[in-house]
Amino acid sequence: MKKYVYLFTEGDGKNKALLGGKGAGLCEMTRIGLPVPPGFVITTEACVYYYKNGDYPEGLKDQVKEGLKRVEEETGKRFGDKENPLLLSVRSGARVSMPGMMDTILNLGLNDETVEGLLKQTNNPRFAYDSYRRFVQMYGNVVLGIEHDRFEAIIDKVKEKKGVSLDIEMDAEDWKYIKDRYKELIKKETGKDFPESPEEQLWGAISAVFKSWNNQRAKEYRKINNIPDEWGTAVNVQTMVFGNMGKDSGTGVAFTRNPSTGENLFYGEYLIDAQGEDVVAGIRTPLPISRAQKTNEDEVSLEEAMPEIYRQLFEIRNILERHFRDMQDLEFTIERGKLYILQTRTGKRTAMAAVKIAADLVAEGLIDKEEAIIRISPDQIDQLLHPMIDPKAEIKSIARGLPASPGAATGKVVFSAEDAVEAKKNGEKVILVRHETSPEDVAGMHSAEGILTARGGMTSHAAVVARGMGKPCVVGCEALNIDYEKGEIRAGETVVKGGDIITIDGTTGNVIVGDVPKIEATISGEFDTLMKWVDEVKRLGVRANADTPHDAELARKFGAEGIGLARTEHMFFKGERIPAVREMILADDEEGRRRALRKLLPMQRSDFEGLFRAMDGYAVIIRLLDPPLHEFLPKEEEAQRKLAETTEVPFEKIKERVEHLSELNPMLGFRGCRLGIIFPEITEMQVRAIFEAACNVYKEGVRVLPEVMVPLVGNITEIKEQKKIVVRVAEEVMKENGTEIRYMVGTMIELPRAALTADEIASEAEFFSYGTNDLTQTTFGFSRDDAGKFLPAYLEKGILKYDPFQVLDQKGVGQLIKLGMEKGKKTRPDLEVGICGEHGGEPSSVEFCHRIGMDYVSCSPYRVPIARLAAAHAVIKEKRGKTL
Amino acid sequence: MKKYVYLFTEGDGKNKALLGGKGAGLCEMTRIGLPVPPGFVITTEACVYYYKNGDYPEGLKDQVKEGLKRVEEETGKRFGDKENPLLLSVRSGARVSMPGMMDTILNLGLNDETVEGLLKQTNNPRFAYDSYRRFVQMYGNVVLGIEHDRFEAIIDKVKEKKGVSLDIEMDAEDWKYIKDRYKELIKKETGKDFPESPEEQLWGAISAVFKSWNNQRAKEYRKINNIPDEWGTAVNVQTMVFGNMGKDSGTGVAFTRNPSTGENLFYGEYLIDAQGEDVVAGIRTPLPISRAQKTNEDEVSLEEAMPEIYRQLFEIRNILERHFRDMQDLEFTIERGKLYILQTRTGKRTAMAAVKIAADLVAEGLIDKEEAIIRISPDQIDQLLHPMIDPKAEIKSIARGLPASPGAATGKVVFSAEDAVEAKKNGEKVILVRHETSPEDVAGMHSAEGILTARGGMTSHAAVVARGMGKPCVVGCEALNIDYEKGEIRAGETVVKGGDIITIDGTTGNVIVGDVPKIEATISGEFDTLMKWVDEVKRLGVRANADTPHDAELARKFGAEGIGLARTEHMFFKGERIPAVREMILADDEEGRRRALRKLLPMQRSDFEGLFRAMDGYAVIIRLLDPPLHEFLPKEEEAQRKLAETTEVPFEKIKERVEHLSELNPMLGFRGCRLGIIFPEITEMQVRAIFEAACNVYKEGVRVLPEVMVPLVGNITEIKEQKKIVVRVAEEVMKENGTEIRYMVGTMIELPRAALTADEIASEAEFFSYGTNDLTQTTFGFSRDDAGKFLPAYLEKGILKYDPFQVLDQKGVGQLIKLGMEKGKKTRPDLEVGICGEHGGEPSSVEFCHRIGMDYVSCSPYRVPIARLAAAHAVIKEKRGKTL
Repeated sequence: MKKYVYLFTEGDGKNKALLGGKGAGLCEMTRIGLPVPPGFVITTEACVYYYKNGDYPEGLKDQVKEGLKRVEEETGKRFGDKENPLLLSVRSGARVSMPGMMDTILNLGLNDETVEGLLKQTNNPRFAYDSYRRFVQMYGNVVLGIEHDRFEAIIDKVKEKKGVSLDIEMDAEDWKYIKDRYKELIKKETGKDFPESPEEQLWGAISAVFKSWNNQRAKEYRKINNIPDEWGTAVNVQTMVFGNMGKDSGTGVAFTRNPSTGENLFYGEYLIDAQGEDVVAGIRTPLPISRAQKTNEDEVSLEEAMPEIYRQLFEIRNILERHFRDMQDLEFTIERGKLYILQTRTGKRTAMAAVKIAADLVAEGLIDKEEAIIRISPDQIDQLLHPMIDPKAEIKSIARGLPASPGAATGKVVFSAEDAVEAKKNGEKVILVRHETSPEDVAGMHSAEGILTARGGMTSHAAVVARGMGKPCVVGCEALNIDYEKGEIRAGETVVKGGDIITIDGTTGNVIVGDVPKIEATISGEFDTLMKWVDEVKRLGVRANADTPHDAELARKFGAEGIGLARTEHMFFKGERIPAVREMILADDEEGRRRALRKLLPMQRSDFEGLFRAMDGYAVIIRLLDPPLHEFLPKEEEAQRKLAETTEVPFEKIKERVEHLSELNPMLGFRGCRLGIIFPEITEMQVRAIFEAACNVYKEGVRVLPEVMVPLVGNITEIKEQKKIVVRVAEEVMKENGTEIRYMVGTMIELPRAALTADEIASEAEFFSYGTNDLTQTTFGFSRDDAGKFLPAYLEKGILKYDPFQVLDQKGVGQLIKLGMEKGKKTRPDLEVGICGEHGGEPSSVEFCHRIGMDYVSCSPYRVPIARLAAAHAVIKEKRGKTL
Repeated sequence: MKKYVYLFTEGDGKNKALLGGKGAGLCEMTRIGLPVPPGFVITTEACVYYYKNGDYPEGLKDQVKEGLKRVEEETGKRFGDKENPLLLSVRSGARVSMPGMMDTILNLGLNDETVEGLLKQTNNPRFAYDSYRRFVQMYGNVVLGIEHDRFEAIIDKVKEKKGVSLDIEMDAEDWKYIKDRYKELIKKETGKDFPESPEEQLWGAISAVFKSWNNQRAKEYRKINNIPDEWGTAVNVQTMVFGNMGKDSGTGVAFTRNPSTGENLFYGEYLIDAQGEDVVAGIRTPLPISRAQKTNEDEVSLEEAMPEIYRQLFEIRNILERHFRDMQDLEFTIERGKLYILQTRTGKRTAMAAVKIAADLVAEGLIDKEEAIIRISPDQIDQLLHPMIDPKAEIKSIARGLPASPGAATGKVVFSAEDAVEAKKNGEKVILVRHETSPEDVAGMHSAEGILTARGGMTSHAAVVARGMGKPCVVGCEALNIDYEKGEIRAGETVVKGGDIITIDGTTGNVIVGDVPKIEATISGEFDTLMKWVDEVKRLGVRANADTPHDAELARKFGAEGIGLARTEHMFFKGERIPAVREMILADDEEGRRRALRKLLPMQRSDFEGLFRAMDGYAVIIRLLDPPLHEFLPKEEEAQRKLAETTEVPFEKIKERVEHLSELNPMLGFRGCRLGIIFPEITEMQVRAIFEAACNVYKEGVRVLPEVMVPLVGNITEIKEQKKIVVRVAEEVMKENGTEIRYMVGTMIELPRAALTADEIASEAEFFSYGTNDLTQTTFGFSRDDAGKFLPAYLEKGILKYDPFQVLDQKGVGQLIKLGMEKGKKTRPDLEVGICGEHGGEPSSVEFCHRIGMDYVSCSPYRVPIARLAAAHAVIKEKRGKTL
């Protein structure tokens, strides 16, 4: 018989896959002697079986019964006992934490008989009946599927009748009365009586937890966080302890270090006489646990309120950190003066904190450098790389909340998750403003630039989730009066309407009306240290996609080792240049084109000089003109008429030329090297500009390494033809300058046919740079511009697991990349191979590039550190023998 | 020392690659004892060497000298001799015939001394000086590059002075005078004297022939006919014989059978007292060689004029046919009563003639069935499959010419090759109308639907080339007065302007104003016999792409074994249906769409019934809806307003919907199975229509084999999702009908990713049908709609050898096809695999499909016989071990 149930004293604390994260943590804590209320874990395998077969596996029922017996023995309480009843919590616990996503049932085991036992044990009828009605409410909602509001309405009615408004004003009889109304509601809605049998309650709860794995918000969370649907959840059945048994009870949540800054300071929040949900839900604003943490003298910390409990908790904090060698996020409850630890897990943290903690743990000797690197997720450091509010900027804050997740974000105010999602689709940037957030808001938070709430603390839902996402977040900003109805925020005199622009600073907690100047991120302190370790470890080169000297300099700051893609056409769009570009396009003949190209030459040359100077000593790949020519002409008649006025070209001709150049499928049209082949004079001008620039900076002492890249090659003959021009003009220019410069000529591999015939193409091309954006478009037959019509639904329905424009499709596109690389290297063993699509900065794609043996990846400057980190991860994972 | 020169008595008559077609023929005829004027061949290897190195190979000069000596010995004449001079013709001769494309020099060896010898030998000063001046003129033009007109101008001046207009009115002194003026012209233009030395003349001519391989018209001809540039030409140096030595001399061209109909009748034309060029150039209209061939009693056939010569010629005709086992095209000259054969080669013929001759030769026991099949080029039979003028139509012919190449063609009148090429580019159909055609017109002929000339005979340039191309052609229509200047044709009272529509009937020779009713081609007689042999030989199945019962019936007539592609959307465009389709697209919700789909269901069902009935016993692949929905909505505001009037949908909404659906790259957009996945109700309706139709006709006794094809799959999940719907609905419908029908569900492989992940896809798909149109688009990144902007230039510049939309790119697209097929069969060994793009009817592509082991190809009904023939060719070539 397979073992599906593990007592906390039995389970292997490392086996998160089997026991779930929470279950494994409970087992491990039990094993190392921490005060954990007794209980057991039902494994994820049972859940997976349940999903596959629609029923419990054989033996599960008996094993749960046996587990219960052992818990009864340990606690001296009995499940369903009238005198001293064992009460249970039943909680989900997946392999990785999915905070608030799945269901939990507390106080399970209460019924009309056992409530009397609870009453006897506590001598507190109000507590006993409050607990009982809470259980009925939770059970009715979670297991029986009756809406939360229906229960709340009953309470409201009683309060109204009684003329009170707060829970605290309700007495034991009120709760008892309400419990009975709850049961009537359940009977009415489900046609069945509320189950009095504790066994029936337990199995109802277990099923409900299994099912909650597939509720809407859990599925969404998994999709956003790339968690496989097949994992399933474990179920933790644990003896209840109560933090709401009076002034000697309490509950709290703590991080072993500051999760926002990473500072080595015990950091948490607690509430006296409360249950755990009260802290997390952000309904009561909790108090700091330590003196050091206090920001307000009026607050009473746990350290002051319960010094002995605090001492025990601090000791446990130290044990946990040494044991798990990482910052932990723990939940504790004090039941009538006794401390229990209910949960521990690796704490979520901001990127800044993650970096600092990892570096500190290396310094403390708890982990090595590679472990420090592997603990920082490449996605996470994204938030360290975005602009912060310029300290020199004069800002006027309208309110200040808690700095829950650092970084500055600016966007239009929206008040609902749906609006945030909608705005994102339309390419708008928004700040999601809520009283507090709940799991239903996760998709909206994902779509927003930042999150602002009026309520809740540093461990509230908004704060935890935002940190996980790396989004700037300000919480508990109580000075804000958020009015969903009117669609406005009032802060003193100031009124901010929905759609107005605001900026939030998650580093300071400030809320500012309008946009504010920001400064580039820098890599310094522990981050700098970590990135140095990263560079020691990684093999893959990381270059940047940069079209301007400014971007090139930024890229160098972020550690780019060269430019993997300079798009020359981006230079064409600039103000003074576009007239010359249009003149070229409107020219009637080669001579006319050459005349216009001569005007462009000095401008392009000076751009290239800037790029070369910024990349002194590093390679610079310059791509020849790529986009279809019609992109440079105005599409609207109005604009065409204006163009006719400023040029000497008649309007009719411009209109005719635009029509002539327009294409049904420009992505597959007259672009890339096709331009250079039909109009060789364009290639000639660009090559001349590149080499004149190279010669000029070479004379200044810059070590210049130009690589000329021919775009959109699909056939050996194309690169052959274009290479001839490149070599001819390059030699000409170098001769004119009396200079010899080493250079390469290569191609983008961005069409399936290029990959398929890479052996031929490599006989001409000295380097390959995979343009995975276009390669994804042609391999999938997806136009990036149009995929919005079906791609979201595809992700929704699970037709695709990822958006292939964000995460490289290793199976299809990756197969072509690998094939092309193998073929290319067969012809030319020293072929330089890289990637320059968006995927060059996406961690799983970077790891793929490492694995197949590429030379470098290239991505936008802001993603260079991410790619560097991902490249180091690839090496470490390879060493550790993990498949990616 | 390599042998570059072969005497006609030495050369291997089978080695056309080395000796060229003409040279091999001369050697072979010499070997079998036919009266061939002595001479030798300079090999193609010498030409190739000359192109590579810019000089003659070592030893060539000596070998030519030795060859000349041997010819002198045989003829008793001496090169450069004053008494009995040897005169030579120097002609090109490539591996395959390129009629009129390269240069020829006659009468070589004449100078001021040897002309006296010729005079003595012939006693005909006029002939001697005419020959001399002809040589100088030809040499001046071909070798020295002086324009033909400059020489003609000299003749015209003399005629004017003399007051005559015809060549025949000129005497020996005139020609002698002209010869001297020619020499002055040459001296003036080249700065050098005309070379008197026969050796110098000979080497000049040899070089000129070598060079003529790369003249513009030869290059164009090679491109049209897919002849490699690397082959080079041989040079034939042969003793001159003269057909213009008086009434006992003559020259002619003959086909051993009728090249137009294939009838087993000796067929040719001759002129008394003329040189060969006079017959071919179409300047004098020649006479028939046999009595049987006469169409006019006034004509005197060779059989009547020179019975003994005719007898000899007829005997040679029989020898040649038995020897070469094919219809021959031969040139002969009668010099003072003695018959010489100057050339023999496989005769060009119409498709009709090709089929009849091949079938007859099998009957005569000269060749076997496979040889008969391999001799018919699949491209060629295209002309047998196009409509002919309906015999029941009342036509009014404005003129009647010679029926030079059969079939009817209709188009706008153009008067120049350039106009024809231009019109073709614009998608217009034209008839090229010329006095006569010359090699400069070949590109224009290729672009025209048909060719009409006022002059020339059945062996004129126009007739020969048109037959080769399989284009309808009427020649020698002397009743037409063609006025290039005015841009009109006058025929009696009728005036036809450029741009007017005419029809020519190449089967009868009729010229008709306007379009006329035509009838479908049928397969009967020898063609039917041959196609039966074809089916015995071929392995590959041939299906048709057909969307309507009419097309399906036509396809069956042409021998299609099922439907490989029925495009359901083509049915959507029909008049009564488009409103329901639009209603569906404009619907706000699923219910609205379902309402519209219910209207479409019976229409689709009846279409499918028709297809199934026509294909009784054969498989029918039906593709689910494929094109983007915006294709069904009007794009112009005008039409949108009209649509708003006829529907209840407001104009604004229609406009908004059109804009919403519009795409930047529709080819890569919301289409194919993406539609069925987002709107499963469309798939449901179509599947229901298919299976209701199948059940209905099954009850009628039709053997129905539906195959449901899901388009544009790129991912296993797509076909999985759609297959679920197909199977569910199919089972539903069959249950409703109490019927069980065998069916398959498969997919088009038309995206690179589908081929790359075919192993996965085949786990769901029971058949693959390669959609090579789309696969070519995505593999190359070429939009078929837009490639016109660069593809012609790509072909021009040799970047691509073929248009990949016409000829399957075996290296790139073919590689994907092969890979996909191998992967697919690994998962599902009995996977049915076919192809349904345009390439399914293109011979080289069909052969590729055979070679990689596909089950069938599918093409348009008219191309079914072509595909069948190509499939048989593939088998035969495989047997013979030829690489394709």
